[in-house]
Order: sequence, then C-alpha cells, then structure tokens
Amino acid sequence: MDILISEVGPRDGLQNAKRAMATADKHRWIAALAAAGLREIEVGSLVSPKLLPQMADTDEVARQARQIDGLTVLALAPNLKGAERGIAAGVHKLNFPVSASRTHSMANIRMTPEQAVEQVRQSAELCKGNPVVEVGISTAFDADASEDWVMQLAADLVAAGAASVGLSDTTGVANPAQVKRMFIRLRREIGDRAGAAHFHNTRGQGLANVVAALDAGVTTFDASQAGLGGCPYAPGATGNIVTEDLVWMLESMGLRTGIDLGLLIAARAILAEALPGEALYGHVVGTFQ
Amino acid sequence: MDILISEVGPRDGLQNAKRAMATADKHRWIAALAAAGLREIEVGSLVSPKLLPQMADTDEVARQARQIDGLTVLALAPNLKGAERGIAAGVHKLNFPVSASRTHSMANIRMTPEQAVEQVRQSAELCKGNPVVEVGISTAFDADASEDWVMQLAADLVAAGAASVGLSDTTGVANPAQVKRMFIRLRREIGDRAGAAHFHNTRGQGLANVVAALDAGVTTFDASQAGLGGCPYAPGATGNIVTEDLVWMLESMGLRTGIDLGLLIAARAILAEALPGEALYGHVVGTFQ
Repeated sequence: MDILISEVGPRDGLQNAKRAMATADKHRWIAALAAAGLREIEVGSLVSPKLLPQMADTDEVARQARQIDGLTVLALAPNLKGAERGIAAGVHKLNFPVSASRTHSMANIRMTPEQAVEQVRQSAELCKGNPVVEVGISTAFDADASEDWVMQLAADLVAAGAASVGLSDTTGVANPAQVKRMFIRLRREIGDRAGAAHFHNTRGQGLANVVAALDAGVTTFDASQAGLGGCPYAPGATGNIVTEDLVWMLESMGLRTGIDLGLLIAARAILAEALPGEALYGHVVGTFQ
Repeated sequence: MDILISEVGPRDGLQNAKRAMATADKHRWIAALAAAGLREIEVGSLVSPKLLPQMADTDEVARQARQIDGLTVLALAPNLKGAERGIAAGVHKLNFPVSASRTHSMANIRMTPEQAVEQVRQSAELCKGNPVVEVGISTAFDADASEDWVMQLAADLVAAGAASVGLSDTTGVANPAQVKRMFIRLRREIGDRAGAAHFHNTRGQGLANVVAALDAGVTTFDASQAGLGGCPYAPGATGNIVTEDLVWMLESMGLRTGIDLGLLIAARAILAEALPGEALYGHVVGTFQ
C-alpha cells in the first residue's frame, strides 16, 4: 500500500457527536470499516469517563476490535493512566495528544506541553514498544505556536520515546503552503519518525492540505467517515476530513489505499442508524454508483 | 497581484440556480463583488433566451457592469451570434465553451468540438481582439476525452485565434495528479496562452485541485460566490468552487488576490435576499470574524 489512512471516526468523531453510540454499534461500525479495508482505526479515548462519558466503553471496544484480523487498534491516551488501560486492553498503538499551544494544552488536558512530554516519556517506558506510543502535535498550525517551537517539541517527543510524531490541524487553520513547509521540516528534524497528518475541514481546506502533505512525503493521514464529529458553522463545514472523499482522491491519483470505496460508503448506513439526527458529510457519496 | 480570480457566479451560478435573479439584483451583486476586489466577473451567458431565460438580460447586465471602474467584464458566448451580442454590449472578454467530450459538446451546444473551434475562429476574426476571445475546454478531465485530444484541441483553438485556453472540470471528476500533469502539458503545448483552471466541487476535490494547478503554474482560477449553482447530491456538494474559501486559502498561502474577504462575505447577503431558498455554500463564512 502507498498510503495508510488511519480512521479516527470512532474516537474524534464520536467524541464530538451529539449523542453517545451504543457499544454494540461501535463494534459493528468498526468491523464494517475494517471489512472495507481500513487497516488502522482509532477506536476511542482512554480518558476519565467523567470527562467523556461517550468514551467510557473504550477498553471494551478496543478488546473487541483486537479480534479483527489484520487491524491495527489505536486508542487515544492523554496520560500514564490511559497508557495503563491501553496496555490492559491490548491495543497496538497509543496516540498521545500533545498541544503546541499552551492555552489549548491547559484547556484540553490540563497540562503544559512540557508536562505532556513527560507523560509520553513515562508511558513509553511503561509500554516498552507494546503498545507503540505515537504523538500527534495538536494545534501545530495555530498562530500562537511558532514553527521553531513545534519542531523543538517534535524532537523532544522523539527523545521521550515517541515512535512517531505527526502534526494535527486541530482548529482547521492550516493552509497548503504551511503544511508543505512544516512537514518537510518535520522530516528534516526527526527523519523517519515523522508521522501522520491530521486535518480538519473547518475552512474547507482539508483535501487541499492533503495534496500539500503528499508533496512533502507524508504517507499516513487521519480521516473520519462522513466527516463525523464536526461542529458545523455552515452547510458542509465538517470536522475531520471525510474518509470517503480522501479515498476517492488518493485512488484517483493512482495511489493505493487498500480500501474498497463501495464497502466504505455502505458502512455509512450503520452511522445513520446508530446516530439518528447526526449530520453525515461527504461529497463522493452522492456521486458513487 | 499574484492570482486572478474570475468570478463566474453571475453566469455559471445563476444559470443553474432554482429561480431567475432580477436584473437589478444582478447589478447590485456584481457591483458588490467588484467592490470586494474581484477584478474579473463573468456576468452572463449570451445564448438564446429560449434556452436559458434566466440569462436573457445578459446584454443589459454586461452594459451596466461596463460602468464599473477597473472591472473586466466577461460573458459566455457559444457561437458567432453570441459574439455579435458581446461586441454590441461592449464586454472586454468573451468566453467560449468548447467541450472535449463529443457527447457533452452535442448536448451542451449542439455542435461537434470541430464545429465549436470553427465558431471560435469566426468570432475571433469578427472581434479583432476587442473583445478578447478566451476558451475553457469543458469536460477536459473526463474519461472519454484523452489527454492527447485535449492538447490537440488547445493547439487548434490557439490557431483559431483564442487568446487563452484553459481547462474546465465541468463534471467534477478531476484529481490533483491529473490536474498538475495536464496543466504542465498545456503550458508546454501553448505556452503563455495557457489559461484558467475551472473546477467544480462535486466530489469535494475543488481546492485540492487548485493546489495542484498552482504547482503547475496556473495563475487564473474561476470560482463562484457561495458555490452557487451547484446541483447538490449531498450536504456540501457544491457546484463551482467557493470563491470565499479559495480567497482564504490563497491569501493564507501568502499569495495576493486583491480581494477583501470581509467585503466578499458581506456580498452573500445580496444572494440570500435575491435568491430565497437557494443553498449558499462555503466553510470560511462561518468562521470569519
């Protein structure tokens, strides 16, 4: 495969959905996504159930997902406690969100970026490579995070034991020129540890930023089925980039994702059923025959 | 300016809108777009009023638009008759649609591509450079038009007197790899006569294709305010790429469009008022402060 699409819908999507999805529906959805050819799925968030009750079943969801042949099971963990739960659930990978913006970091995980790096260090020591510890640097493209600081953070995270460090456009403010420049620089700073691109479509720039990241040599992209979890300001203002549209683009460009677009689109029916009233986004779905 | 955005809303948008816009509203809208910094606007289509009654006032709209200082007034003309009307109305440029796909050509203008080239030749002879004759090759990225044929058509059009020849993704099927390859080739074939990129957002690929076209050296892009005129299959499935989102992207990349995004967004109010019930698309609008 040329490109790895890491499906974040069950985490980033459901975390922001209007209602909680039942555990059985989560499993059905994840199984359908895997059957469509998605090889990596972020199944939930190992945070306190008090903070995110809709993610309280993540351990169980992860254990069930582990039964799916060939699927890499990823879960978000904000701290050492989350890492312990991830080890117990047998996930393959843990994804730590480390914010470049100090304000966002405090708001999101009540830690400074430096404290978050320390959590990554302790977690990586605990995990010993199983699960693998990955990091997406949140708000990496925001104005209050200088590029130098983001690169410093990436280097610190590698030193702390992160197997890969990607850049996340949490607030949907990145532009293609910036994306290309920063991913090229990231690769120069941390070499093969340069990780995934995570784009939000808040300003409609998601796929444009993917084109720029491809130019910079990025081969792993986060995306969410139906752009689930967006906080729409306007028609079409989705959250994460839409997996279906991303697959169409990459395959049309001659890149291989291993994903069957027909099966992927069919999996939207589970969402429509399990999350009534939730807006399902995407352009390709209406044109696909 | 680095980039020329050619606003096609009053033509491509209104041609496909659910109801006709009143002539006075068209003028008000065009004036607001020009005041926001758009330097070129396609104000209508010089076709038979029987075919497109909503475009019947194009001559009058063009004459009024000619009064706006610094604005390049463009109108679509499918044939010699349209060219005659364009000359009489005093437009600066005439845009001829020549389809690469034979099927689309017959359906759209009841001519073969070769007959359309002949109309361009006769019109260019008639116009003698005033107005300038431009061509966008419709369906240039469709499977039933080979790249060799599109390039042959571009060369024939230049020989017929077209001042510029661009490539139009009429059906929204283009992908970034194809866009980059074909615009590079177009420039190799016809040099400085290589013209505008015209993308539709049917599959959500519009801005991604702009990034690819920028890479290929394209500096003129068609776009439509609010993505007007789309035939939506799904939420967000707009027609033309959204001018507002395009301006945000280009300006964020450090390119200059000369457009004031605040004034541009304010002009949407005219659309909302003049075309009640029409879907207005765009992502940036909801985030702009």
